[in-house]
Amino acid sequence: MIGATPFAASFEDVRAAAVRLKGVAHRTPVITSATLDERAGAKVFLKAENLQRIGAFKFRGAYNKIAQLSPERKRGGVVAFSSGNHAQGVALAAKLLGVPAVIVMPSDAPAAKLAATRGYGAEVVTYDRERMNRAELAASIAAQRCATLVPPYDDPAIIAGQGTAALELIEDAGQLDVLLVPLGGGGLLAGSSLAANALSPGVRIYGVEPEAGDDWVRSWRENRIVSIPVPKTIADGQQTQAPGELTWPIVRSLAAGVVTVSDDEIRAAMRFAFERLKLVVEPSGATALAALLFGKVDVRGACVGVTLSGGNVDPATFAACISSLRA
Amino acid sequence: MIGATPFAASFEDVRAAAVRLKGVAHRTPVITSATLDERAGAKVFLKAENLQRIGAFKFRGAYNKIAQLSPERKRGGVVAFSSGNHAQGVALAAKLLGVPAVIVMPSDAPAAKLAATRGYGAEVVTYDRERMNRAELAASIAAQRCATLVPPYDDPAIIAGQGTAALELIEDAGQLDVLLVPLGGGGLLAGSSLAANALSPGVRIYGVEPEAGDDWVRSWRENRIVSIPVPKTIADGQQTQAPGELTWPIVRSLAAGVVTVSDDEIRAAMRFAFERLKLVVEPSGATALAALLFGKVDVRGACVGVTLSGGNVDPATFAACISSLRA
Repeated sequence: MIGATPFAASFEDVRAAAVRLKGVAHRTPVITSATLDERAGAKVFLKAENLQRIGAFKFRGAYNKIAQLSPERKRGGVVAFSSGNHAQGVALAAKLLGVPAVIVMPSDAPAAKLAATRGYGAEVVTYDRERMNRAELAASIAAQRCATLVPPYDDPAIIAGQGTAALELIEDAGQLDVLLVPLGGGGLLAGSSLAANALSPGVRIYGVEPEAGDDWVRSWRENRIVSIPVPKTIADGQQTQAPGELTWPIVRSLAAGVVTVSDDEIRAAMRFAFERLKLVVEPSGATALAALLFGKVDVRGACVGVTLSGGNVDPATFAACISSLRA
Repeated sequence: MIGATPFAASFEDVRAAAVRLKGVAHRTPVITSATLDERAGAKVFLKAENLQRIGAFKFRGAYNKIAQLSPERKRGGVVAFSSGNHAQGVALAAKLLGVPAVIVMPSDAPAAKLAATRGYGAEVVTYDRERMNRAELAASIAAQRCATLVPPYDDPAIIAGQGTAALELIEDAGQLDVLLVPLGGGGLLAGSSLAANALSPGVRIYGVEPEAGDDWVRSWRENRIVSIPVPKTIADGQQTQAPGELTWPIVRSLAAGVVTVSDDEIRAAMRFAFERLKLVVEPSGATALAALLFGKVDVRGACVGVTLSGGNVDPATFAACISSLRA
């Protein structure tokens, strides 16, 4: 089609998602800090998605996806596999929309996460990590029940929903020179890139992934999707092995690059958020802030947006991170 | 004077303070949580003053006070005694207004607090807790240098400045049925009462103090200012021994009552804020939330404002609070 967007989702889709999410998702605050500005040598605007419902941006995409299902599809319910924020995002969105939800989680997932997901009214199906493939299990459940699979990132409605975080950030903060976004599967970064590119032309957008899980950096370098083994990192929300088929072309076209941060830099960013911002940020949620604090991107004199993407971290991990002397 | 307010400060003073603080203090977000609403059986609006500059509401009053000094008084500088949030509030406000500041702190204050206060450009004078009276020391420094003492709460400009937190809360959240405010010397509660009483007539306002430091409850009962020994409580910002001479009559006239919370209830509230709100709240800052969570005031079906007054807590204390199993 002439004039059609070359991507799975467009800025118009992000705008439509924002209408759908109005009054349902929190319009999370944009937080500023003179201390942070001084340290970064820039004017920084933090989008506090750790204060989003379920404690992470994932609710946006899940709701945007499930809200658009046909009545028949809604009756069949939704299925998702995740042991993290996506599980809770799908569970809450389904509950709000009156749609049955099945979440496939590993049987050794933390009891608190299983309970939280059930707390949102979802049915939890557990599987043995060693012996079963969760994607196949989820697909077979979906087929049996005529349910719809809600993917964690590689889906047009998910991408568009996540993009509303950057849309709100720019509406509230104004034009940005640089935007730093945590990067796992790429749903948040792809959606944010669609929004930021349209609303703040010329903005330099960077994805930030953990050093150990540098599938995007490798892919960027080779200009094709490269897979890596499951990375070992404190950033448990960014243990993806490869860029998504749908998120990759959007990010590759619209973003300026991808940078990495070490686990120690992530811990230091979490401690900074605790000490100076009074915010609880989970490891994956702190990667973009870490990139800013450790100078991974040149931001001197710039207006910089930074997404704090989530705050779901267990007390023991958080206590260890803020008590470390590395910050 | 006929028609004059009977109190040290009036709602007009709070309004004037809001004009002075515009663009200087953060307009902190008002945060809502479906989980909290469900647990409280009410519609709850949290005023997140832990996200205020210096991490607590104290900046509001300090800036409002120092901004109103005459040019001559400003040249003489300001003096304050505090080892807590007031010290940092005065130090930052003085720095922003180009006024020299001396902060009198105990020589055994945590190194981090001494450094933070110096970091805002204040001169720190330390004293021996066992041998010297800090109020006398501060007064003598003020006299020597022709400097102005900035009291922590018993001052019309301090009261008016603190009241801007409740003013913003009601502007953003709308009419309230109940307002819960942490209570130490009474500056925040007195100012909040002036604002809430004017903007949301009929609102029931409660101060919340730690069980061990129940000077306000005792005073309320006897209808006169009662003093207690220095209380031992985790709520280090509420270790005052008696209501203030200026704050007492305002609170006694405009508030509905004072309630107490135990240290364990405070810890549970801090853990709730960590787990469900993703906010770092210090013990004193969590007392009003604790009163809500533990049903100290009947709020069923009500619109309830709750002030989270600060977030300055050292990592070890915070780690212990969120790891406790009491929540």
